[in-house]
Parts: sequence; structure tokens; C-alpha cells
Amino acid sequence: MSIEAEATLFRRLTLLGSGLIGGSIARAVRARGDIADEIVIYDRNPAHAARIAELEIADRMAATPQAAVQGADCVILCSPVGTFGDLAAAIAPHMKPGAILSDVGSTKQSVIRDVAPLVPDHVHFVPAHPLAGTEYSGPDAGFATLFEGRWCLLTPLPGTDEASIARVRCLWERMGSMVSSMEAGHHDRVLAIVSHLPHLIAFTICGTADDLADETRQQVLQFAATGFRDFTRIAASDPETWRDVFLNNREALLEMLARFTEDAQAMARAVRWGDAAYIEDKIGRGRKIRRSLIELKQA
Amino acid sequence: MSIEAEATLFRRLTLLGSGLIGGSIARAVRARGDIADEIVIYDRNPAHAARIAELEIADRMAATPQAAVQGADCVILCSPVGTFGDLAAAIAPHMKPGAILSDVGSTKQSVIRDVAPLVPDHVHFVPAHPLAGTEYSGPDAGFATLFEGRWCLLTPLPGTDEASIARVRCLWERMGSMVSSMEAGHHDRVLAIVSHLPHLIAFTICGTADDLADETRQQVLQFAATGFRDFTRIAASDPETWRDVFLNNREALLEMLARFTEDAQAMARAVRWGDAAYIEDKIGRGRKIRRSLIELKQA
Repeated sequence: MSIEAEATLFRRLTLLGSGLIGGSIARAVRARGDIADEIVIYDRNPAHAARIAELEIADRMAATPQAAVQGADCVILCSPVGTFGDLAAAIAPHMKPGAILSDVGSTKQSVIRDVAPLVPDHVHFVPAHPLAGTEYSGPDAGFATLFEGRWCLLTPLPGTDEASIARVRCLWERMGSMVSSMEAGHHDRVLAIVSHLPHLIAFTICGTADDLADETRQQVLQFAATGFRDFTRIAASDPETWRDVFLNNREALLEMLARFTEDAQAMARAVRWGDAAYIEDKIGRGRKIRRSLIELKQA
Repeated sequence: MSIEAEATLFRRLTLLGSGLIGGSIARAVRARGDIADEIVIYDRNPAHAARIAELEIADRMAATPQAAVQGADCVILCSPVGTFGDLAAAIAPHMKPGAILSDVGSTKQSVIRDVAPLVPDHVHFVPAHPLAGTEYSGPDAGFATLFEGRWCLLTPLPGTDEASIARVRCLWERMGSMVSSMEAGHHDRVLAIVSHLPHLIAFTICGTADDLADETRQQVLQFAATGFRDFTRIAASDPETWRDVFLNNREALLEMLARFTEDAQAMARAVRWGDAAYIEDKIGRGRKIRRSLIELKQA
């Protein structure tokens, strides 16, 4: 499926949500001339909508999701995944025949479960997930280069219009991403371990530290060494986004957490009984994985 | 206890170990003229010793620890904490009267347990721990500015010669560190949560990922998103150093891991039963701690 290099991908692109990801898409589209002629944004948070208007990264702000999607060639859901069901129900009757509906949610089985049944036959649904982000959120957090050199994973359902998949792929490639397709369930298992579990751990350890007796807690903050400081960076991420991710990738996340907990208990036992060889072996595996990552240029 | 700003602190400074920390001390001392006139280094790893000689960051390489400490005004143990007992036994009879013995170990109760009984009355023992490091190790990993703006914690025993404590404090201040003193047991509890537990978690999650079925494991490496990538960075740290840290801060580390595990299980239960408010509250605490850290300029 080839798309002419010169052609603009969409006449009208609508973003429902303008936080870190939506705001970065808008800025990236603006920075290039070949993705969309017009960007329309709807944000359910009035303060965020006002700020986006002020920043002038949209051509037009819409007052409702229904108004936002009217006449759009491509609509991308950019709010927390827990909002997608209601949002899809609201916009479905208003989408133009032949339009593409996509999203940027971090969980893909739940998005397919919540959105796919509501999508009219004349609309092409192409779920997507850019593996990019920072610990910042809100309309000021986005930037045009966020997706450069990062992966975007597509999880289209079997039988989806190939031309629409190609357009979504092209959209992400033009924003600088590498694109890969996989089955939604597989996506959710991989993301559970590379992203969702690390976030759950980071949020948890901050709570554990916060519960310590007063003097120790003060010194935890004062003397936060490398490890804890890195964890708190992850833990600064948007609460609503991550709450929704955890609740919508429940099974895979709980399975990975159970595996991790077993492994942590085995490490605890080795520490208690002074099993130096076991501990060294586990640390050595961490190094090996780090080296593999560097070789894969993801580090 | 004031030390003249112009005066060089030590005529001869001996470092036993020349990895990331020892190598950085040598480079920092070299970069300034007012810490030591002469740097002597012993490294038990012959390849590392040869490399340090090649790098010319020591004035003299010693063939044995005994030879290295002879005539030194200050000796710093810079090898993994598990080596300190044997090392202290070897050097104790050869240290000059009035000399200072210090270290850079990440666990302080164990260092006091292993080293203090071996220190002769005419030597002043001042345990220290610079909260600085990177995930790199070995003789090439060090750099002169590693300690700038970082804390160094001293845990001197009651009754230690005040002038010697002041000299060690001054050594770290001249390398750019902020210095604080605390009781060794308190140090070990604080470090267990800010550094040792995060490292144990990072090593463990790399192993958990490495145990996944082949296809998933490949994709974990390929699509490592922010969270996992940050964890693998920590997990690349030196295996022997961290094995020794875990084994020598056993009680505090196991207690913090037990608290963390309880908290993670509570989070798992909230995810399983869809307790959105609980999850959001825990994430919110992570953000709050991050903000406190930024306010304390440690982030």
C-alpha cells in the first residue's frame, strides 16, 4: 500500500484530548506540512482547552466531541483509555463515511473491547500505541519531536481496510516513529512488563517511603540516591492515565506482578541466607539485558 | 575544627581499589592541588591496576595493600564492602600512627562491624559513604566531577578524634560534596529504601523479563519503553559491589522489601477489584514525593 510522498495524508485531523500525547501530535503535525491540512482539537478539560487555544497549536477548537469529529478524515482518541467507551459512543454517529478512527492508548485489548463494537461499518478502526512519553502531562507538556526514533505499535483487527492501516502507519512514520504491528493480546503482555509493571513498582515504592517514620522519611527525600530518584521520575506520571492503564490491562499486569513478586521473594531468601552466587547471577542477568538493549539501540 | 584553606590535607593519600569511586577520587584529587601531594593506589585486580597505571591518575601503584598504606596520612577502602574485613586485617599493622582510615562503602554497620575491631588505637577510623555513582564500573568509569553537588555521609563512632573527622569532611567538601553525619544504623535504613531496594527491584525485574517465553522476551527488548529502560540502567551496576551491599545490609533491606511487597500486594488487590480511588491515591503520592524531591534540589 503506497502513499505518495508529496500528498497530505488527511484534510482534517481531529484529536480528542490534548495532553502530553495529543499535544505532541498536534505540534508534530504543525511542524510538517504533509500530514494534515487542518487540526481540530476537543479537550474535555475546559482549562486545558483554553490553554491549547492560547498556544495556537490547533486550527480550531471544538466545543464537543461530536462537533470535533464532523468532516474529519482521521480521528485520534488521546484521552485516558477509561474514557474511550463513552467517547466512541458519542462520536460514532457523527463520523464521516470512510474516516479512520485511531487512538494512542497504552492498553489495546481493552480499547478493542470498548471501542470496536461502537464503530460503524463505514469507519475504519486502527488501534495504535506510540511508545513515547515523559513524566510530564497537560497541554504544555507536548513537543513536536516526542515520537522521533520511538516505536509506534498498531494492533488492527483482522479484515481491517489495508489502505487505512497504511495511512495510520504513514502518519506515525512522518512524525519520525518506527511502526510495527502485532496482535492486541501480545501487545498487552509485552507492555505489562516493559512499562505498566515498572510504573506500578515506582508508584508503590514512593508510597512505601512516604509511610516511613518521620525522621527517616525526611532523610529519604534529602539523600535520595540514584535508584530512588529514577523511580520517582517515573512515579511523577499522570495519575488518571496510569489508573486507567492498570485497570484496563488487569490480567497481564497482575500476572507480571505475580512473576516479579516470586522472583523478588527468591532474591530475599538468597539475601537472608547469604547465597552470594544466586545474587551475583541475578545481577549478572540485569547487565546482560542492559547490553542487549544497548545493542538494539533502545537505551 | 577549622582547616586552613591553603593547606594540602594529606601528604600521602592511599586508595585501596580503583573502580568507579576510587578512580573518581584519584581524578578529583589530581584535578585540585589542595587535597594530597601524592596518590598511591593498590588494586587487587591486576588488569585494573595495569589500566590505572596507564591512565597515570596515581603517582605510584603499590604491589600489595601493606605496601600501599605505608607512610600514608589517609587510607580509603574503595573495594566492595565484602573485602573490607580481610583488607583491614592486612593493613592494620602497617598503618602510620595518627593516620586516618576511611572507606566509601554503601553499608555502614557492616563496615564498622568488620573494620573497627581491627583498627589500632593510633589510627583514626572515619567511615564514609558518598551518595554518588553511575551504572558504569572499572578503572575507566571514574571522573573528577562525580562527587560535585552530591551528599557524602559520615558515620563516625562516638569518641572519634574530631580533627580526623574534620579532615575527612574537608576531603569530600574539596571534591565538591555536601557532607552530613549520622548514626550508622540510621544510615543503613535510609539507604535501604533510597538505593539498595531500588537496585534489588531493578535486578529482579530484568530477571523476570529474561524468563519470559522467547517471543515475548525478544519484544521486551525491542520495545522497552521508558520504565523498563530506566530499570535496566540501574541494573547494569557492578555485580560484586551490589552482591556485597545486599549481604551487608541484610536486615534493613529485607525489612524495606517486606514493606514494599505488602504495598505492592495492596496495589495488586486494588487493580484486581477495580478500586480506582485507591490506585489514584497511590499514584498521587508518587507525584507528591517527586515534587518534594525537586524542591530539595535532588532531582
